[in-house]
Amino acid sequence: MRIALDAMGGDNAPRSAVLGAWEAVKENPALTVVLVGDEEAIRRELPGELPSGLEIHHTSEIIEADDEPVRAVRRKKDSSLVVTVQLAKEGKVDAAISAGNTGALMTAGLLLCGRMEGIERPALAAFIPNIKGRVTLALDVGANMDAKPQHLYQYAIMGSLYAEKVLGFERPRVGLLNVGTEEGKGNELTKAVYGMLVDADLHFIGNVESRDVMQGECDVLVSDGFVGNVLLKAMEGTAATIFSVLKQEFTSSLINKVGAAILKPGLVRFRKRMDYAEYGGAPLLGLRRPVIKAHGSSDERAVKNAIASGVRFVSQDVNGYIQDALQKNTPGESE
Amino acid sequence: MRIALDAMGGDNAPRSAVLGAWEAVKENPALTVVLVGDEEAIRRELPGELPSGLEIHHTSEIIEADDEPVRAVRRKKDSSLVVTVQLAKEGKVDAAISAGNTGALMTAGLLLCGRMEGIERPALAAFIPNIKGRVTLALDVGANMDAKPQHLYQYAIMGSLYAEKVLGFERPRVGLLNVGTEEGKGNELTKAVYGMLVDADLHFIGNVESRDVMQGECDVLVSDGFVGNVLLKAMEGTAATIFSVLKQEFTSSLINKVGAAILKPGLVRFRKRMDYAEYGGAPLLGLRRPVIKAHGSSDERAVKNAIASGVRFVSQDVNGYIQDALQKNTPGESE
Repeated sequence: MRIALDAMGGDNAPRSAVLGAWEAVKENPALTVVLVGDEEAIRRELPGELPSGLEIHHTSEIIEADDEPVRAVRRKKDSSLVVTVQLAKEGKVDAAISAGNTGALMTAGLLLCGRMEGIERPALAAFIPNIKGRVTLALDVGANMDAKPQHLYQYAIMGSLYAEKVLGFERPRVGLLNVGTEEGKGNELTKAVYGMLVDADLHFIGNVESRDVMQGECDVLVSDGFVGNVLLKAMEGTAATIFSVLKQEFTSSLINKVGAAILKPGLVRFRKRMDYAEYGGAPLLGLRRPVIKAHGSSDERAVKNAIASGVRFVSQDVNGYIQDALQKNTPGESE
Repeated sequence: MRIALDAMGGDNAPRSAVLGAWEAVKENPALTVVLVGDEEAIRRELPGELPSGLEIHHTSEIIEADDEPVRAVRRKKDSSLVVTVQLAKEGKVDAAISAGNTGALMTAGLLLCGRMEGIERPALAAFIPNIKGRVTLALDVGANMDAKPQHLYQYAIMGSLYAEKVLGFERPRVGLLNVGTEEGKGNELTKAVYGMLVDADLHFIGNVESRDVMQGECDVLVSDGFVGNVLLKAMEGTAATIFSVLKQEFTSSLINKVGAAILKPGLVRFRKRMDYAEYGGAPLLGLRRPVIKAHGSSDERAVKNAIASGVRFVSQDVNGYIQDALQKNTPGESE
């Protein structure tokens, strides 16, 4: 199997990409990772001779985190991100992975690979850590802003299959993000899709409120891309704010530093419990080719796990299962 | 001025209601608070003789936190919550306050008081604490699930006036909750309302992402009720989860308890910084009568401050300003 990895994307690129790929091919002799990016920069990070499982595909451009996605994809044809997806499109690799600009990866995925047959809107998934020490796969978190019931229905099918085949969750519990748990709650969209999810061949557990997501109420959380994006960033922002203020308090005096030092193992354990790096990258679902978005702050271990996700995405034939499921589950006309 | 207070609503009722009202009338001799609820239960909490500024209006029923709102309001006609709003409707008091069932208060406000002329959808506001030690007034957080651009536009006008007249913010910065900061981001709704907010007589600062709300990016945050509700509960849930896990870690051993004891003043300071009780209750905006929702966990100080908010809501004639502003700002046809 061959996986293309954007070596220049993410906060710790190219170092974490190179080292993550290095580890991945060492563990899996059947795997080849194509490191896409500036050859010199990539070679500089190699801990030794280029092993047989690693290839370098040189590119001259980089899409930055703050580049406008659509324009960046159109103009920077020789960027590491675009070429990574292009290699997947051309069948030169089986999957594409990037920790770079999320919007650009989505755009490149859509423009280059295109949608799977029968999929109306691809969805971007993300991991939300929960106190059960697992993750919730949330989708859509921003690929499609104005979703129709049929789109949410397809997200549920795709998310459930990904959670089962790649994350290894048995009978993933699918929840619908809503403002109350009772049936009949919500806006026109959630009301319309509720019955479709009840009738689908899914382990649908009903509505889930945003305050219960981190309690691990469900394994797959379905929403439109606008709401999912607001949810994800609200959680990230709240956690970041709390930790930054706590850090200020904990380092505001010598005695506080002593207290914080005592508690450090507990804090580290906490961060570990909330760490979702081991689940690898989050998929873009509904494209003709497997594309995975690794977290922008991915370290070497997160990259390695994202590559492992890519391997399972391909070897488990998730897209094949999605295609089959859509043919079996067709609740009325689409769009 | 006369304010009706639902003495039976909230986690700490009737104690915090009675004591909060007691303090409020002690500080403001021109104020009368009508405590609505079970007379015997109310009298039990009085720290002394009933002062001239306090009245008791006996009711026989209570709407519980988990009662279905619409049914509860229709059936429990002699509940403290319904009678509190009824007194406002009949003009026997100038404003109504409850820390009880939010949905029931919204329903009672709408059914009994009705909408202000020109207001298409009343909005429920909520306070989000931020690291600047202030709050952001977020609306709508759940009164109206499927909002149109015109509704969000009216939320912005109402929220800005409330923030200015009642919270005392100078030229409140109004933000539109969105998935990116650039103009043109978002769904059909946010794209449509953006230009209306630019043209309005408001200090509109543009789009605000959910991750930046706690940084204090804006004073008034506008969204549809579905998204606002998801945002609010996501923040509450994330904060609650983090603190509960930290608490577990901090009490998991004797040495950790020592560390936690050292840090306690810092943790208390943190909670204080994030405490929004001093801002009083959050208003239901767009009703013919001022109605305020105090937080369900309100203590005596929070109730006292909610009463103070009610006083300013009335004395500053917020509804009069809203009416004027709507007449000046009419961007095209409504609904």
